[in-house]
Amino acid sequence: MLYYAIEMLGIVAFSISGVLTAMEKRLDPFGIFIIAFVTALGGGTLRDVILGVEPVAWLVNPSYMYVIMGSVFLAVILRKHLRYLRTSLFLFDTFGIGLYTVVGLEKGVNAGLIPIMCITIGTISACFGGVIRDILCNEIPIIFHKEIYATACVVGGICYFILDLFPINDQLVFAIPIVVVILIRFLAVRFKLSLPSLYKNAAQG
Amino acid sequence: MLYYAIEMLGIVAFSISGVLTAMEKRLDPFGIFIIAFVTALGGGTLRDVILGVEPVAWLVNPSYMYVIMGSVFLAVILRKHLRYLRTSLFLFDTFGIGLYTVVGLEKGVNAGLIPIMCITIGTISACFGGVIRDILCNEIPIIFHKEIYATACVVGGICYFILDLFPINDQLVFAIPIVVVILIRFLAVRFKLSLPSLYKNAAQG
Amino acid sequence: MLYYAIEMLGIVAFSISGVLTAMEKRLDPFGIFIIAFVTALGGGTLRDVILGVEPVAWLVNPSYMYVIMGSVFLAVILRKHLRYLRTSLFLFDTFGIGLYTVVGLEKGVNAGLIPIMCITIGTISACFGGVIRDILCNEIPIIFHKEIYATACVVGGICYFILDLFPINDQLVFAIPIVVVILIRFLAVRFKLSLPSLYKNAAQG
Repeated sequence: MLYYAIEMLGIVAFSISGVLTAMEKRLDPFGIFIIAFVTALGGGTLRDVILGVEPVAWLVNPSYMYVIMGSVFLAVILRKHLRYLRTSLFLFDTFGIGLYTVVGLEKGVNAGLIPIMCITIGTISACFGGVIRDILCNEIPIIFHKEIYATACVVGGICYFILDLFPINDQLVFAIPIVVVILIRFLAVRFKLSLPSLYKNAAQG
Repeated sequence: MLYYAIEMLGIVAFSISGVLTAMEKRLDPFGIFIIAFVTALGGGTLRDVILGVEPVAWLVNPSYMYVIMGSVFLAVILRKHLRYLRTSLFLFDTFGIGLYTVVGLEKGVNAGLIPIMCITIGTISACFGGVIRDILCNEIPIIFHKEIYATACVVGGICYFILDLFPINDQLVFAIPIVVVILIRFLAVRFKLSLPSLYKNAAQG
Repeated sequence: MLYYAIEMLGIVAFSISGVLTAMEKRLDPFGIFIIAFVTALGGGTLRDVILGVEPVAWLVNPSYMYVIMGSVFLAVILRKHLRYLRTSLFLFDTFGIGLYTVVGLEKGVNAGLIPIMCITIGTISACFGGVIRDILCNEIPIIFHKEIYATACVVGGICYFILDLFPINDQLVFAIPIVVVILIRFLAVRFKLSLPSLYKNAAQG
């Protein structure tokens, strides 16, 4: 139940991040909806297609679609106030990433994959919605050059498998990595951390 | 038979729209062919992959490929005359969209999906070929910001399910939504209709 | 064994070409890794998804991932020396393309597809990693407008099916098309051949 609530909050946050990106590009209402849709569901769709789990989750459970529709509607109506909501959005988004990572991980485990592949699948689940959003908006995906995002997912994934070695309650093995992903994201954004640059004059670039 | 003929005309129209976009970007002959190919078959491929219907249709029925090859060949040969054909092209394209929408819808129905998901699948079938075309050509997909296109598919889809509630001949349930999609597209283009803009100075933008 | 070694060299070459493209765009280390990953495995993943062979190969065999990680690590460390390695890289890359083409072809044959579709699948396997790389880096895919690349794959594929008509050793039917692909690529690059242009002032363009 809590799990489901957090997942839906993640969908809301991802949808709104899609709406914000789409409105910067001045897309029409339908374009905005599509971008919100792929941001929220693109990562999970790619995950399911790569794993061969079809039809994909959102086709058989319409609540994802309804939540996206509602979020887009609200975000468009309240578009002038969205900047005041940035903090709460960041919160949802970060919860969403943490949760998507671990949900992806567990789908990988259930498919019998080895840990490194489960982490890959978890990271794809959490990050590729945003990647497809940026490609559709004709931008280089932001996670490739600006933010600590995927790195948080990978660390969360490693954490999951380390915890799994110990005789710990399953719910903690599920919850702690989510907290780890969220913490890393928070600290990274709070202290403006990014991955070390490989380019000399990157500071000016 | 008529069904098949219209589908192939749709393939022709989509291929030629791909050739036109690719030539604007000055791609080489192979690039032009690929763009035509994804424009014509990208939407259907994405539909089949999401539904888990594999191998995808064009792999087992080569006539799609032959029709695309012929269309590309003719379009490249006649490239200087294509502008005179714009009206007929628009006609084919619009038929193609209408038909693809309903074909996608019915694939969704056969897969046991609920109406809203069938409409989503139908819209993806009809529109995502053009989306992939524009992404490969490094443009923001035109359907996200310029034309009433996907909206026509959605309305056609709703129409299909309304008709389905009544004791009407199956062929009419199939045909009327196609006509609806075509009509909306025609009216939208004829009267330069677009979705309402969310941006104040969009008229100048 | 030789087969496997060449495939891994292909992965190395594709990864490094991904690193080079990603570094030109000044991506961060994680972005560089992702680009290398999709360049090396994107074509094969698309092939497997279209054919319905899931989970895709790299999910169940982690050696692909390890080879990519190693290649990216080395390429980043040695980034200042990579230009001296361009010749060897081109060599690997060309071997990789030849091999990927024929591996893709044979997957098509095993799936019971007709020759033209097998050639399509082989070309997708060899070329679409690079296409996805360029899209993620916000460029029009280079193979659509600059190099003879896909054409070499198509010719190699045709060669495979011609050889298959004769009572020749299976290993030769496998090896000769690879050599053909490599030869065409070499000659094209050596003599700066490209597909005929359809545009009048393309030479200046």
